[in-house]
Order: sequence, then C-alpha cells, then structure tokens
Amino acid sequence: MKKVKIYVTLKESILDPQGSAVQGSLQKIGYNEVSDVRIGKYLEVTISDTDRDVDTIVKEMCEKVLTNTVIEKYRYEIEEA
Amino acid sequence: MKKVKIYVTLKESILDPQGSAVQGSLQKIGYNEVSDVRIGKYLEVTISDTDRDVDTIVKEMCEKVLTNTVIEKYRYEIEEA
Repeated sequence: MKKVKIYVTLKESILDPQGSAVQGSLQKIGYNEVSDVRIGKYLEVTISDTDRDVDTIVKEMCEKVLTNTVIEKYRYEIEEA
Repeated sequence: MKKVKIYVTLKESILDPQGSAVQGSLQKIGYNEVSDVRIGKYLEVTISDTDRDVDTIVKEMCEKVLTNTVIEKYRYEIEEA
C-alpha cells in the first residue's frame, strides 16, 4: 500500500484572486509582513497494492483528472504506508 | 524574506465528502487501486523581513484565520526565500 501526497499549485504566471483576497484580509488584521499568498490543493491518495507502476498511475491521474495542466502544476511524493 | 508552506487537512475523524467523490470518480474510470482520497489545502505564504518571530506569526495566522481548528489540522515549513 502506498500513500501519495500530491501538491497542486497555480502556475507562476496565473493570477490567484483567492490568494490575493486572503493576503488582503491578513494585512487588514495586522499581518503587514505578509507580502504574498498563493493557494493550492493538497491531496492524500492511498493506493492499494497493484501490479501496475504506481508512479505511472499517479502521473496519469494528475494529468487526466486531478489537475488542469493549462493553469496548474503539480508535484507528488510516494510513501510506503 | 521567508516562504512558508502550510498544509491544511481535515482531522482523521472528520468525513471528507469531496475526497470520497474524487475517489469514486477515479474508480469509475478504471483506477480501482485508489482506496482513499483526502483533500486539503496548500498555502504558500511569503513573509517579508520583520522583527517579529516568524514562527509565532505563522502559528497565530493558522489558528486565527487560515484553518478551522475544530475540524482541521495543519503543519508548516518555513524556508528562506
């Protein structure tokens, strides 16, 4: 069994209005040192034992379903669980 | 300047309907080995140089604003940027 941690973030060139809103709110309540906030997704996927290559499965799932590769990038870590 | 990576996840005991939906969809399109999906948030916060202790600031922001500590837990990493 493997536990995969997937981090999905917007590409650098893509505006992040959600992040900007959070940054604005943080500054408004006194956290003036916060100069940037970007918000992404974090997924923990458990994959049971399989004959297929886990790395291939994860890459495929990310490209096809879990991320929008036009505006998002992703990285992942595979851990033994 | 510091870059803080914050990972927010639902506590183990809290149901994650969003994750269950994603898991269901993945299984439906052939990824039968996916046995669990939990979805959280991932934040990248840039903090400019300050006299205040960055660790304290981050903890405070997480507890007060960025997470709901009743149902969510968080962890973070502070990096030099």
